[in-house]
Amino acid sequence: MQTLTVKTGSSAYDILLCPGCASRAGDYLPLDRKVLVVTDDGVPEEYAARVLSCCRDGVLARVGQGEGSKSIETWQSLLSLMLEHGFTRSDCVVAVGGGVCGDLAGFAAASYMRGIPFYNIPTTLLSQVDSSIGGKTAVNFAGVKNIVGAFYPPARVLIDTDLLRSLPPRQFAAGLAEAIKMSLTSDAELFALIEQNPIDEILPTVIERSLRIKKAVVEQDEKEAGLRKILNFGHTIGHAIESAEGLGGLLHGECVALGMLPMCADGVRERLLPVLEKAGLPTACQADPAVLLTAMAHDKKADAHGVRAVWVPEVGKWELVSLTPAQLAEKCRRFAAR
Amino acid sequence: MQTLTVKTGSSAYDILLCPGCASRAGDYLPLDRKVLVVTDDGVPEEYAARVLSCCRDGVLARVGQGEGSKSIETWQSLLSLMLEHGFTRSDCVVAVGGGVCGDLAGFAAASYMRGIPFYNIPTTLLSQVDSSIGGKTAVNFAGVKNIVGAFYPPARVLIDTDLLRSLPPRQFAAGLAEAIKMSLTSDAELFALIEQNPIDEILPTVIERSLRIKKAVVEQDEKEAGLRKILNFGHTIGHAIESAEGLGGLLHGECVALGMLPMCADGVRERLLPVLEKAGLPTACQADPAVLLTAMAHDKKADAHGVRAVWVPEVGKWELVSLTPAQLAEKCRRFAAR
Repeated sequence: MQTLTVKTGSSAYDILLCPGCASRAGDYLPLDRKVLVVTDDGVPEEYAARVLSCCRDGVLARVGQGEGSKSIETWQSLLSLMLEHGFTRSDCVVAVGGGVCGDLAGFAAASYMRGIPFYNIPTTLLSQVDSSIGGKTAVNFAGVKNIVGAFYPPARVLIDTDLLRSLPPRQFAAGLAEAIKMSLTSDAELFALIEQNPIDEILPTVIERSLRIKKAVVEQDEKEAGLRKILNFGHTIGHAIESAEGLGGLLHGECVALGMLPMCADGVRERLLPVLEKAGLPTACQADPAVLLTAMAHDKKADAHGVRAVWVPEVGKWELVSLTPAQLAEKCRRFAAR
Repeated sequence: MQTLTVKTGSSAYDILLCPGCASRAGDYLPLDRKVLVVTDDGVPEEYAARVLSCCRDGVLARVGQGEGSKSIETWQSLLSLMLEHGFTRSDCVVAVGGGVCGDLAGFAAASYMRGIPFYNIPTTLLSQVDSSIGGKTAVNFAGVKNIVGAFYPPARVLIDTDLLRSLPPRQFAAGLAEAIKMSLTSDAELFALIEQNPIDEILPTVIERSLRIKKAVVEQDEKEAGLRKILNFGHTIGHAIESAEGLGGLLHGECVALGMLPMCADGVRERLLPVLEKAGLPTACQADPAVLLTAMAHDKKADAHGVRAVWVPEVGKWELVSLTPAQLAEKCRRFAAR
């Protein structure tokens, strides 16, 4: 078993990487108390059932699959469940699912009684390499993604690659998009590895190195003041595509794949395109550039002067650029014309 | 002007004490941006109007007075207002009101985009000595007080005693209850001062010393792991009385006054009673002990073994005791019999 300890100004927590650890969750998490286990109906039922069987007093919350569950209403239903079962600050929440589950369950844990312990057992490649680390929790509100939430680090994260076996290929590819994203800004060697090898053969390495990149960033910049912006590479346009799609249609990772393409130099794009194709990720976007622009105006990283976004001039390097609405429109147009 | 700097593990912020500072808020707070000014209809309109006049781009939210506004619905209306006006992370929230306003506006600031800066200008004695410091924000949910919220320190607090001139005597007394509470556990000299002098003559001293007590506690224990429990003196039973009253009727400070009486030694109670009477605070409770017990079962400080509560054996001293349901019932019965 490998352990990565993530240290930030206000907290420290462990990420345990170990095949099969989710089935023995009781060995790694203090579940001898009331535990709200949050899962979604896209996750194999036995995953949450196995965790529940390790809890002294487990309560199951099975929400609908997809972004629709990241709502104020579903969040309230989790709070109600905890209240009904008399949860106190000594009790905890465990997410068993993808990023939607983790974001939703994390915000419920963050806000119930001003915060009770939160454990995350990510079941998708996307959440294993990305959303399970960093302490960002949120729900969507008024049609805007992640607009309500908290920075609330998990107390511990279990990464069990066995859980990925049940993942549909499209979901797997979407997760890979985030790993490709991190390698592109921060780890040229990892990018080359992905470029040159069948993914199945290097998966544990891809997960571990992606986590190390994200850990380094999060430790230096917990609250998105600066460096953490590199994690948003591909997300400025990606989130806009996601909003334009009405929080449905394309998967988050697919939107990030599309969002990276206009934000790297030609030479980088030439290497990125075959990698995306090999991974089974989309490389052309149908969304109307005007709709994307409107969506970007609501981006959390927008300020009065435009949007600050990450540009990749060569593989493994990045810079932060400020884009005016006109420049963004130009990027979106070039992109749509592909 | 006096400045108290509150330092906690994850943040540091200043409390400025200065008569008249609220009218010149622009001199003390960075208001050259979008500012959501949250006030309630019990606060003189000119207080928020003066703050708004200092903002480059102020948006007024005037909520109803009282606990009813500490709701998920009102919180959502504040989030909607910020979204409608295109607030980004560079913008901020200012509360101009009592504890309800601060708790509500603070949680909106804490959760919008995972947190934007929050400034507090408390307008009641209660919020000046107590709720403006410590970083606790919350709303009520499913009839349970403060059950949803965040630990989210303000970026700065302005304490302007001029604002207290418009305060109804009953509100003033309720605020004094928290100052009496803090002196009783932690500052025998301040208690004697309150005991022996007309309050009007020592008000600035009462506020400043109360803030210093709370600052010392909060700095040592931001997240209520231990020491901070002393601030809950009088609150275990006090909150239960508040719940039994249906979040109406008695004021919070009045409930705390009532909640202290059963939790101190006879000799302390003998000195406390005339002080409460002089302050115009209630000393006898009408609530049904059985109803109080039910409410205490939902107390955030409750765990599987009962409720940990603060006991004052002599003025200026305190100890933490664990009370079983039976012992709590006994305290409530003795209390009801008064």
